[in-house]
Amino acid sequence: MAVSTPTPPRAVVEHLVRQAVYQRLGKPLPKLATAPNPLIVNVSARHCHVTQEAVEQLFGKGRQLTVHKWLYQEGQFAANETVTLIGPRSRVISNLRILGPCRTLNQVELAYTDAIALGFDIPLRHSGNIKGTPGCMLMGPAGFFEMSEGVIRAARHAHMSPKDAEHYGVKPGDFMKLKLGGECGLILDRMLCRVDPAFKLEVHIDTDEGNACNLQPETPCELFK
Amino acid sequence: MAVSTPTPPRAVVEHLVRQAVYQRLGKPLPKLATAPNPLIVNVSARHCHVTQEAVEQLFGKGRQLTVHKWLYQEGQFAANETVTLIGPRSRVISNLRILGPCRTLNQVELAYTDAIALGFDIPLRHSGNIKGTPGCMLMGPAGFFEMSEGVIRAARHAHMSPKDAEHYGVKPGDFMKLKLGGECGLILDRMLCRVDPAFKLEVHIDTDEGNACNLQPETPCELFK
Repeated sequence: MAVSTPTPPRAVVEHLVRQAVYQRLGKPLPKLATAPNPLIVNVSARHCHVTQEAVEQLFGKGRQLTVHKWLYQEGQFAANETVTLIGPRSRVISNLRILGPCRTLNQVELAYTDAIALGFDIPLRHSGNIKGTPGCMLMGPAGFFEMSEGVIRAARHAHMSPKDAEHYGVKPGDFMKLKLGGECGLILDRMLCRVDPAFKLEVHIDTDEGNACNLQPETPCELFK
Repeated sequence: MAVSTPTPPRAVVEHLVRQAVYQRLGKPLPKLATAPNPLIVNVSARHCHVTQEAVEQLFGKGRQLTVHKWLYQEGQFAANETVTLIGPRSRVISNLRILGPCRTLNQVELAYTDAIALGFDIPLRHSGNIKGTPGCMLMGPAGFFEMSEGVIRAARHAHMSPKDAEHYGVKPGDFMKLKLGGECGLILDRMLCRVDPAFKLEVHIDTDEGNACNLQPETPCELFK
């Protein structure tokens, strides 16, 4: 599949238009437009992160992940490569997408709805903190890869730069709230702040959270302390 | 399957114990204990309501729904009878539970996660308001039943008696909020109040909402205006 140039997310365009309009009018910027960066809320469907060793075991010696679609965070991508996950009750999830580039650990991120369907009892964890979590079997075209641990529900979190953190008045490890509007709106509590100069402002929620409020491109989103 | 006597839900027992303790201590009741009834929050997994005509077409002439498990609302039950739902992309959900007793309309209630998996684009509706919603095919051991409409995501709602409504200061059709605590807590907005003297205080949310916050028997729940 060809790698297309991504169009900017709607929130980015809206943010730029808003800033331009207020500037043109010579009016004071409202709170939303003073944020250094637009707020992007993305739903992470179930996926996995794998090591190069796992890639070779699953897809063949010397194989590398290839880019299906670039993600919003610089350098991150959804790979063309997918695996089949085999759970404890021998139930499977086919076409589980691998996100690249390769990492130093193997981790499967499921929503609770996925986990219950598969028969997994998985804990809520921050990405990378997988000690003592359930394992699973991954199956690829070239073979199996056994994970002794690493199946989690990833805790909701916000990626941000130090400049964003300053704007929102938070520091790394703080929790924020995310208000999502609409007909079945909600406020998500305990949104972990992950701050890094390389991060673009982006909130990651899972499919249970996104579907609970029917998150759409036009859903009003507000991040606050 | 035998119909067992249901044990009272944990929230009911807790509410009674709390009231008894405060009474014994001669202390003023805190806000939670002054409510006339305990707050029960239940997750409705995907299910359907059907007419007697549909039951006979699906299970055979003269067949009646039989009780698998009584639900919290008086007279409502999960039936032993289940159907297979066939969606627009020929994908199926097996073992879709029928809730009894029979109604005057046919309605399938799915979470958005279910609907997306099946390829349905379904609207958020209050139960019974199914005009213009997608239809589907149901399959039972004795035959098919075609629904021309009635597949919805049921809007979150609270059943309550007039006494409960008075306690919370709401009237039928008002919206309330439901706060669910824990490690991945949230506040659900737009919880519709349905008031009837026959109703026991009970909030119904779907699996997306319940799994978004990992609702457990010990999760703190708070209903407010």
